[in-house]
Amino acid sequence: MDMIAQKAKAETFLALHHAPEILVLPNCWDAGSALILAEAGFPAIATTSAGIAFSRGFADGHRISRAEMAAEVKRCADAVTIPVSADMEGGYGQTPEDVAETVRQAIAAGAIGANIEDGVYDAGAGRPHLLDTALCVERIRAGREAADALDIPFVINARVDVYLIAGGEQTDAMFRDAVARCNACYAAGARSVYIPGIADAELIGRLAQAVEGPLNILAGASTPPTARLQELGVARVSIGGSLARACLKLVQHAAAELREDGTFGYAKDSFSNAELNRRFEP
Amino acid sequence: MDMIAQKAKAETFLALHHAPEILVLPNCWDAGSALILAEAGFPAIATTSAGIAFSRGFADGHRISRAEMAAEVKRCADAVTIPVSADMEGGYGQTPEDVAETVRQAIAAGAIGANIEDGVYDAGAGRPHLLDTALCVERIRAGREAADALDIPFVINARVDVYLIAGGEQTDAMFRDAVARCNACYAAGARSVYIPGIADAELIGRLAQAVEGPLNILAGASTPPTARLQELGVARVSIGGSLARACLKLVQHAAAELREDGTFGYAKDSFSNAELNRRFEP
Repeated sequence: MDMIAQKAKAETFLALHHAPEILVLPNCWDAGSALILAEAGFPAIATTSAGIAFSRGFADGHRISRAEMAAEVKRCADAVTIPVSADMEGGYGQTPEDVAETVRQAIAAGAIGANIEDGVYDAGAGRPHLLDTALCVERIRAGREAADALDIPFVINARVDVYLIAGGEQTDAMFRDAVARCNACYAAGARSVYIPGIADAELIGRLAQAVEGPLNILAGASTPPTARLQELGVARVSIGGSLARACLKLVQHAAAELREDGTFGYAKDSFSNAELNRRFEP
Repeated sequence: MDMIAQKAKAETFLALHHAPEILVLPNCWDAGSALILAEAGFPAIATTSAGIAFSRGFADGHRISRAEMAAEVKRCADAVTIPVSADMEGGYGQTPEDVAETVRQAIAAGAIGANIEDGVYDAGAGRPHLLDTALCVERIRAGREAADALDIPFVINARVDVYLIAGGEQTDAMFRDAVARCNACYAAGARSVYIPGIADAELIGRLAQAVEGPLNILAGASTPPTARLQELGVARVSIGGSLARACLKLVQHAAAELREDGTFGYAKDSFSNAELNRRFEP
């Protein structure tokens, strides 16, 4: 991508985190989903690493290589003209230099922002654990410096997995840890912080007040509407892999209809081939 | 893929064209859709070139390179244990050697069958036209010889686009041309013929009687149920890009809900991340 255009997109994207209106950022997993989301009028979109993983035949959670993820991000970024932020999982390595290289590859893929998680998977372990805050800070700083070296106002979205890893538990100590991590990441050069795993309005509001920069929330079926999230002080809401998963559920429903009834009713609510060809012609 | 296993899958797939029960063959476009379709219990699946095109950012209709299409077929074949047939469009070139190389690459990707179309696109032209029957025969024969050289009972599915290109017209001359093309392709080594663009039960039944081998029909929302197709003599029914397009329509619906209502109702009918992770863990 033209670097001047990419910088302008990064500036636009950064400004959307500080606008009066909440940034609703849906997540795509391939060029097709990116294009259909973009035409709905969102000012920007993001990728979902879970959706990309499933479409490529991997489980979610740091299974894809950095190069393959960057290639998929490029597919999405090339499919649309609006800013695209990349879900780069845990940065594809634990060291600050790993994160710097991941930011460089996300920029090369055409992204204008990237999620970097602080929860990592040990070899063979199914569940992630949190990196020490000091290391997280060094990782975010290295990513910031990599972007600054390319003179792009890249939006590093520091993902803080305190609540996600706890799986429903909510203690005062967790609140203090999450806020401390978020604020340390802002100080190190993150432009947004992302706390998945919370759906309770009161907790979302308290976190939005306590953190010193834009807060990104992950929405699911039970998340308050975006207007309510905006009242609570949330700056950005993304949907993660939820839409990719809903599409795979539609595949399961259609498969059951084909197997059990031998009918093709799933095809009634669809695009025609011509409608999609018009969208994908260069 | 282990060549002995692949040959066994090809034999199984070929036999399914001659079984008393119609072969219902749904079409996948990535590893995720392949895996979800396979777990529904189909004895085999196929890829959709239209679905793959849209997911990779191309319009449908011979826009992807042979190598890229083969790479996507491999993704799908690697994701499941059942036989996978590849939609290889027009064979990526008009010569018999082009088709032979396409069959070799489909086999290398793990497929046990391939669609080869007789409608081709001229450079810059939006609509395809039919190749001469004599050239079609040479193309199918070259594909057959390429598979035979590898000693695999590969199912070449010769697609005859007489009705598809006519776009609704149905004349006696078209019927005679379609049947002549089908029977010439069987004689040249096709193991199935595929006539998209017909939904009328009477015409389907007449074609099924007139062709001298298994007939594959493309189903859409208005196609008779599979039990009726079986009565009419259809051996194989596939769904083409219809399910891929329905998923993109779901993306459009979810985008409208997010933009207009700010809610996440699309996520209610979905898999959880854990449900999909269990399916995709090696």
